[in-house]
Amino acid sequence: MRHLLSTAELAYDDALRILDTAEEMAAVTSREVKKLPTLRGRTVVNLFYEDSTRTRVSFEAAAKRLSADVVNFSAKGSSVSKGESLKDTVQTLDAMGADAIVIRHSAAGSAAQLAASDWSEAAVVNAGDGTHEHPTQALLDALTLRRDWAAAHGQDSPRGTDLAGMKVLIVGDILHSRVARSNLWLLRTLGAEVHFAAPATLLPQGVEQWPATGHYSLDDALAAAPDAVMLLRVQAERMGGAFFPTAAEYTRRWGLTDERLSVVEKLTLGETGKPAVILHPGPMNRGVEISAAAADSPQTRITEQVANGVAVRMAVLHLLLSQSHQEESHS
Amino acid sequence: MRHLLSTAELAYDDALRILDTAEEMAAVTSREVKKLPTLRGRTVVNLFYEDSTRTRVSFEAAAKRLSADVVNFSAKGSSVSKGESLKDTVQTLDAMGADAIVIRHSAAGSAAQLAASDWSEAAVVNAGDGTHEHPTQALLDALTLRRDWAAAHGQDSPRGTDLAGMKVLIVGDILHSRVARSNLWLLRTLGAEVHFAAPATLLPQGVEQWPATGHYSLDDALAAAPDAVMLLRVQAERMGGAFFPTAAEYTRRWGLTDERLSVVEKLTLGETGKPAVILHPGPMNRGVEISAAAADSPQTRITEQVANGVAVRMAVLHLLLSQSHQEESHS
Amino acid sequence: MRHLLSTAELAYDDALRILDTAEEMAAVTSREVKKLPTLRGRTVVNLFYEDSTRTRVSFEAAAKRLSADVVNFSAKGSSVSKGESLKDTVQTLDAMGADAIVIRHSAAGSAAQLAASDWSEAAVVNAGDGTHEHPTQALLDALTLRRDWAAAHGQDSPRGTDLAGMKVLIVGDILHSRVARSNLWLLRTLGAEVHFAAPATLLPQGVEQWPATGHYSLDDALAAAPDAVMLLRVQAERMGGAFFPTAAEYTRRWGLTDERLSVVEKLTLGETGKPAVILHPGPMNRGVEISAAAADSPQTRITEQVANGVAVRMAVLHLLLSQSHQEESHS
Repeated sequence: MRHLLSTAELAYDDALRILDTAEEMAAVTSREVKKLPTLRGRTVVNLFYEDSTRTRVSFEAAAKRLSADVVNFSAKGSSVSKGESLKDTVQTLDAMGADAIVIRHSAAGSAAQLAASDWSEAAVVNAGDGTHEHPTQALLDALTLRRDWAAAHGQDSPRGTDLAGMKVLIVGDILHSRVARSNLWLLRTLGAEVHFAAPATLLPQGVEQWPATGHYSLDDALAAAPDAVMLLRVQAERMGGAFFPTAAEYTRRWGLTDERLSVVEKLTLGETGKPAVILHPGPMNRGVEISAAAADSPQTRITEQVANGVAVRMAVLHLLLSQSHQEESHS
Repeated sequence: MRHLLSTAELAYDDALRILDTAEEMAAVTSREVKKLPTLRGRTVVNLFYEDSTRTRVSFEAAAKRLSADVVNFSAKGSSVSKGESLKDTVQTLDAMGADAIVIRHSAAGSAAQLAASDWSEAAVVNAGDGTHEHPTQALLDALTLRRDWAAAHGQDSPRGTDLAGMKVLIVGDILHSRVARSNLWLLRTLGAEVHFAAPATLLPQGVEQWPATGHYSLDDALAAAPDAVMLLRVQAERMGGAFFPTAAEYTRRWGLTDERLSVVEKLTLGETGKPAVILHPGPMNRGVEISAAAADSPQTRITEQVANGVAVRMAVLHLLLSQSHQEESHS
Repeated sequence: MRHLLSTAELAYDDALRILDTAEEMAAVTSREVKKLPTLRGRTVVNLFYEDSTRTRVSFEAAAKRLSADVVNFSAKGSSVSKGESLKDTVQTLDAMGADAIVIRHSAAGSAAQLAASDWSEAAVVNAGDGTHEHPTQALLDALTLRRDWAAAHGQDSPRGTDLAGMKVLIVGDILHSRVARSNLWLLRTLGAEVHFAAPATLLPQGVEQWPATGHYSLDDALAAAPDAVMLLRVQAERMGGAFFPTAAEYTRRWGLTDERLSVVEKLTLGETGKPAVILHPGPMNRGVEISAAAADSPQTRITEQVANGVAVRMAVLHLLLSQSHQEESHS
């Protein structure tokens, strides 16, 4: 693995290797032992063309725990807004010695374009490219799901296992969601069954050809007994159109309200009798796509997702950068 | 001490311990010896919902001198503006491994709310919550005052002493000032006598019940022979109302003009004959609440206040984090 | 050398020492060996009153490679916008322990004012002061030019040599460009011959007295057979006036178009037969002052300039801070 660009192209073995390494990262770090010396002297650049303090801080925390240096290059108010192309910016960062470039950009395919270019020798991590993919989000979701799935099935450790047989429901604006796309591909790779619940026009065209089951009603989708319910964030900027006329209307049809929570409380992880789980990529709009009671339910894994985000990003940076180091030594 | 939320609830012994530790921090660091290894591997998050580069940089410098890692989480343009609650943000930072959260927020009580919650195990430091409190500002002011007070009274070191008998005059918009509030409580705890000078309507309601003496004229207040004059910053956004019609009018009535400086130059620290001192929390509006001559007078301690700010914040982080570390080791 | 304020006042020996040290910095660091311990425990503050992510990141990367701590103090949205003077801000940074202050400010002379003051003991590096100077840009340009010039003339290493006899053409809005000014003085100090190409009214008044040759047509200037063509960035905010009515008009008259590139491709470095070189300080406006083909030509040194920027800034920080350290030790 030289870059992490998408989950669509992530092989089963690589996915499992990232998840297992993330478990190891979570195990060896703690409030007392915060830092590993693995990436001392290496430089990770966060190149963010879109605001996302949470994702940026998560990558920053991951890199610092591995003792890397972190440079935050926010493209807001920078020379990018003066008309500089991605190419010139990346060549700049390369010349400054970036070992990894974590990129968030509004254009689908920008991370892949960077990785395919000869602009930089740095490893590229896609931290969200338009509506295309957000692979570390899907990986942290998978890490979260796998813990519950493995534990419910009596395994001592989730390591080495996948999500075979798990049924995951993703709810909301699938059409515009890079989180939904990255999750779909990774969940399928790991053997899970994916369900979508969204208004017909907010499911991607040709969803019938996708390896997922579509539902046009959240209540119908919950009746199909998913093991996990993954809510997408409502993008306020998409409100006011034909399908999301108001936040209240969204909540009524697609929100995990207190009423629907009572349905979810009866769902289980397969036949194990253990309760199903609720995920949300954050930040939540409490009272819109999720009620306060649902957000704070013992079934939610939202806080775990955040912690797992750091572990997964540590694993990715570690695998990309120590691997590239070895290649250099051998060449 | 597990958090630092206010000076109103800061015990005498704890206040003295912070001040004495700050003296020690100032003594052991220098241009040559900049860093202590005390907090190596610990993470301090600056969570700022309001702009304040100065306070943020001061906490950042303090944390770095103790070898901690610092993550700056500016809530401007972050997911907070996407509607995320304080709870969700703090859970995120906790999951990312924050040992201390330094929070500035426009809502009075936000730091206390965070500390009372179970959202995070991190130590909480209030860096300003609305018009409520700004305790590290009061502590750095006290550190500054104590040095002069102790030296004027012939003590070799300020350590272990308080401000018994010192008369401190605070001038300006007391009503809306968290600096004034935090100073009032801490100065009283340390045995000082507090005077306020402000328009009647900019003194808090019920000031008669407060442990302070109110003056409705700066000239009257100076006639009461304070040992220290502490100017508050004029908030431009409050200008234009009934009491601060213009900056010029403010200066005429409440500014430390050259004329009033000549009065202050005759004031002394108690009976010692040593000159009284002038403080300002910065940033100054030269020519508004303070004349250029007053700002640069040998009686002013404004530069010392800034340096003492780093020392006090080092002390606070050190006491909070090494204490919590010990508790963990014992449990 | 105690500060780096301008190239106009930079002595020949100091200039050569910076360039030779930069060569050494470039030689001892690499993708594998990123960090030198030289400035461990020292603090470099980037004090930026104007946006410039690239220059800030370059100084940050340079300081971190020398193991210094870096604090970024962006004066946007900070207390500066609340009316604080440069003096108060710098005293603040000094009190916080800054060893070097890298300052970018819109006012010509601001860096020199800071250095002449007693506000701080920190070394001052001018990172751009209005239309006055940007000395590290000129130094990185000279480092870039010297490599090609020395290699073309058969020298094993550029160290110890200057640019005697080299003919450098600078193209664009000379009048408002700090890059042009800093380059002029440094190139002259190093023995090069400087040509300007710009509309008559965008050459500084009294250019006839400057040690440079003016051309009022780019084609004429290229006919004078320069060894290097240095393009200035078009400032969009200057467009729309009498001389730059539109970007297309600028390109037609002053842009390095594909047609003009074919002329440059025939130019050589003196009599050596090696191709002349093209420089641009970045960020480029591709298609405006430089065509895409020219930007990507083997003659361009734009990526090298960026890498050399880090090396030059490492050299400057190293020379300023280890020197000041020695002075302290001796005193």
